[in-house]
Amino acid sequence: MTGIFERLAALGLELPSPRPPVANYVGTKRSGELVFVSARVSHERGELGSDLTTAQGYAAAKETMLHLLAIIREDIDLDQIASIDKMNGFVRSASSFTEQPKVIDGASDLLVEVFGERGRHARTATGVAQLPYGAAVQLELILRVSPE
Amino acid sequence: MTGIFERLAALGLELPSPRPPVANYVGTKRSGELVFVSARVSHERGELGSDLTTAQGYAAAKETMLHLLAIIREDIDLDQIASIDKMNGFVRSASSFTEQPKVIDGASDLLVEVFGERGRHARTATGVAQLPYGAAVQLELILRVSPE
Amino acid sequence: MTGIFERLAALGLELPSPRPPVANYVGTKRSGELVFVSARVSHERGELGSDLTTAQGYAAAKETMLHLLAIIREDIDLDQIASIDKMNGFVRSASSFTEQPKVIDGASDLLVEVFGERGRHARTATGVAQLPYGAAVQLELILRVSPE
Repeated sequence: MTGIFERLAALGLELPSPRPPVANYVGTKRSGELVFVSARVSHERGELGSDLTTAQGYAAAKETMLHLLAIIREDIDLDQIASIDKMNGFVRSASSFTEQPKVIDGASDLLVEVFGERGRHARTATGVAQLPYGAAVQLELILRVSPE
Repeated sequence: MTGIFERLAALGLELPSPRPPVANYVGTKRSGELVFVSARVSHERGELGSDLTTAQGYAAAKETMLHLLAIIREDIDLDQIASIDKMNGFVRSASSFTEQPKVIDGASDLLVEVFGERGRHARTATGVAQLPYGAAVQLELILRVSPE
Repeated sequence: MTGIFERLAALGLELPSPRPPVANYVGTKRSGELVFVSARVSHERGELGSDLTTAQGYAAAKETMLHLLAIIREDIDLDQIASIDKMNGFVRSASSFTEQPKVIDGASDLLVEVFGERGRHARTATGVAQLPYGAAVQLELILRVSPE
C-alpha cells in the first residue's frame, strides 16, 4: 500500500510547518487507540456570506485540514492512522449564510483524497458567530490509530 | 426485553426514510465499540426566539432525533445499541434566546422514552448564529454498541 | 502521589456544590474507560467583548471548570482520572470578539494545575452567539479513567 506521504506528494500537496499550541493544551491527545486533535483555525480571516464566498471557504477548510495533518504528524506516523472517525467544522457565518456543509466539504474531500476509505468520517458542519483571531473556519478531529 | 422497534411502535413513532449524506462523509462511523453519528438538521427552518417558539423547537429536536435514528438503523441494529453516550445539540438562536436546553429536551426525552436507562446520555445544548439550510436545530450523537 | 483533593486544597480551591441536571440527561456518562461529561455554563452571565472583558471571561472559565469537577466527583473518584482527553469551550461572543482561546485558558490552566501532566488535553475554543441562561462560557469534557 502506498504511504500517506507518497499520496500527498502525488496530489501535489505539501504539509505546512505546524504552529505548536501556545497555552496549556496539546495538539493531539492519545487515549487508547483514539486520538483527539485540538481545533485549528484557518489562516483565512473573514466571515462567510459577507467577506468570503463559499468557494473561498472551501479553500480555507482544505488549508486548515492540511495544517491539522501537519500537527498530527508531529505526534503520530500518518501511516498508522486506521480511520478518521469524526470531524467537527465551525464556519464563521453571516446571519444569512447557510452553506456550511459546502465549506466543510473542502476538508472532507481532502481527507478522502489522502486516506481513501479510511478517510470517510462522520462529521458536523455548523455556523458560529465568531472564531478565534477572526478566522473563517475551525476544524477538529477524532481519529483511530492501529494497535501497536 | 422488548425490542426498540416495538418500543417505537408502542409510542406511536415511525422512523422517516433517511436521506443519505450528499458528500464525502458517512452517516455513521464505527470505531471499536463506539459509533460516531454525523450531525443532521431539522426539517423545521427558522430561528428560535424570533421565528419559532421554544415548543416548536422542542418538536424540531424530536423530529431530528427520529431522523438520526433512521440514519443509524441503516448501519446498525438498533437493538445492538448498548448506550447513548453523548448528544450535542446546536440551536439556531436569536441574540436574546437562552432556552437552548428546553429545545434539546425534545431529543433527550425521546431517547429516554425509546431506550430507557440506556438512553440516558451526557449532552451539550448550545446556541449558534446559523445552521445549514437555515434549520432550527442540529443534533449529533456518540453511542456504544454491544460487543459482537 | 498526592491526591487531587490535597492538590485542590494546596491551590486554595474548593469545589462548589454541584447542581444536578434538571432533565433527561446525566452529568457524566461512562463508556468503557471513557467518561463523557455534560456541558455546564458559567454562573457569570454576559457577552465577551461587550459586557465582559477577557479577564472576566478567563475567571468564568475557571469557575465553570471547578463546577464540572464537582459534577464529576459525584460519579467518579477524581484520583481515578487517568487523563483529561478533550475539552470543548464555547464563549458567548460579541461579533468583534476573537480572544476565545484566552478565555478558555482559564479552564485549561486549572486542569494542568490540578492534574499535572494528566491534565494536558486536546481542546477547542469557539465563539457562539448565545448560551443557555445567557451565560458567558460553556464547557464540556471527555476524560479517561484508569481500568479498575
